[in-house]
Amino acid sequence: MNRKPHVAVVGATGAVGIEMIKTLEKRSFPVGKLTLLASARSVGKKLKFRGEDHTVKELTKYVFPGIDIALFSAGGSISKEFAPIAAKAGCVVVDNSSAFRMEEKVPLVIPEINAADVKGHQGIIANPNCTTAVTLMALYPLHQAFNVKRIFASSYQAVSGTGAKAIEELRRQIEQLAQGLEATREVYPHQIAFNVLPHVDAFLPSGYTKEEMKMENEGRKIMHHPGFHASVTCVRVPVYRAHSVAVSAEFEKPATVEEAREVLKRAPGLQGIDDPAKNEYPLPL
Amino acid sequence: MNRKPHVAVVGATGAVGIEMIKTLEKRSFPVGKLTLLASARSVGKKLKFRGEDHTVKELTKYVFPGIDIALFSAGGSISKEFAPIAAKAGCVVVDNSSAFRMEEKVPLVIPEINAADVKGHQGIIANPNCTTAVTLMALYPLHQAFNVKRIFASSYQAVSGTGAKAIEELRRQIEQLAQGLEATREVYPHQIAFNVLPHVDAFLPSGYTKEEMKMENEGRKIMHHPGFHASVTCVRVPVYRAHSVAVSAEFEKPATVEEAREVLKRAPGLQGIDDPAKNEYPLPL
Repeated sequence: MNRKPHVAVVGATGAVGIEMIKTLEKRSFPVGKLTLLASARSVGKKLKFRGEDHTVKELTKYVFPGIDIALFSAGGSISKEFAPIAAKAGCVVVDNSSAFRMEEKVPLVIPEINAADVKGHQGIIANPNCTTAVTLMALYPLHQAFNVKRIFASSYQAVSGTGAKAIEELRRQIEQLAQGLEATREVYPHQIAFNVLPHVDAFLPSGYTKEEMKMENEGRKIMHHPGFHASVTCVRVPVYRAHSVAVSAEFEKPATVEEAREVLKRAPGLQGIDDPAKNEYPLPL
Repeated sequence: MNRKPHVAVVGATGAVGIEMIKTLEKRSFPVGKLTLLASARSVGKKLKFRGEDHTVKELTKYVFPGIDIALFSAGGSISKEFAPIAAKAGCVVVDNSSAFRMEEKVPLVIPEINAADVKGHQGIIANPNCTTAVTLMALYPLHQAFNVKRIFASSYQAVSGTGAKAIEELRRQIEQLAQGLEATREVYPHQIAFNVLPHVDAFLPSGYTKEEMKMENEGRKIMHHPGFHASVTCVRVPVYRAHSVAVSAEFEKPATVEEAREVLKRAPGLQGIDDPAKNEYPLPL
């Protein structure tokens, strides 16, 4: 491609869409033209990109011709409906939903781990679940060094993962409780303020949630490691942004803490915060 | 003992002391006389017990003669100084701090698990760490049925575990942030409002915290199971009261989910909340 690509963000007004626009700007992605797409009720909203207003347009099946790259983050059902249409129109779709992740012909990619998997894509490239991405970024370098067998993990997931409405729900509940009112619920089945919910995505008959199974299923595909096992408890916490995961991992080869630290220091895309004596450790804030 | 015992609560004005007084009342413990003890600055405060005001007295080494049972929850250093004095004066001390838990001559007891261990006590009986107690209540019945080898656990610990000042800190930070002010810190090294802190009790040279090691050390003693292993990540969450723990356990004998559910249904002191299809699962609130 000789010209700068025409990029679209589908779900531009959502919590993730807004971060996508910021990231395109922050990373100086060579955007030739930017098209912001959302549902009818967001049409006309203006969002800034590189200092200029961009007006949100309605997502329809006719908008994709001429767009080179479409970043989708508007939920699984929107992706299922519109991503194939976009791909057929010649877009490369990068899909943030779970709609296509486990489809054989769709590469599921974390660039620092399996960028080469994008070769031979057929118009749709999926990116993984949030906690899966966070965990594998640290686990994969350790896997390369020591061969991971299985992990036990518990998550501390921010409301941002549910979307802009959930961020608003936490804010509203805090305010209601401060005024002595009852905390009303629209997004979560229970109060999230001053509570933790062991319920992220839907429950399966096994008792695990879909979210909990993503770590194993998506982890196997991304790491090319069909024998990988993950037993995960996913928990929503009253934090606005940034997910945390506590992981215990079992490896084939013996590994010392010092060796593991060295591996993680050299790994791409990670920043170690690890000086407990100075109260330095990872925090969502 | 033919008369009803004279009971003292040491640390009566603290978060745990207040719960102790409520529990004595709620469980109709046969209290003959109640003495409330605290540091000099709380002297004169009045607390209700069975509808009557009780005035807090100063904890000194001279107060214990005549007291039959002293419930201590005023921190490890107070226990270290005063529990032996109380025991010498003829009290039976039930100590909630970590001061004596691992001493060979001090029984460490969860009544539903190892009540018989109180036999032969020498005046001090310890009760375990909060997350250890919560976890073992559910783990021990499973251990009896299937022989536990090791657990991987992550905690979601409320600020109440740190004490009344930490409850106030969360409340104050929420208020400050609502007013657009900076959240000030007195108790925790980082903001706890809208954050999670992987830091409960002090860090050891190994990188684990003391809190994280209590599960293994206290678990071995309480379950009489020296080979028990526990790898734990303890995390403070912005919840006012009630700790949660996510536990994966490995057993010697094979166990199905159904068998485990049956065991837990019959176990003393537990209430199962387990109907995910109806959004029923344990919540700190």
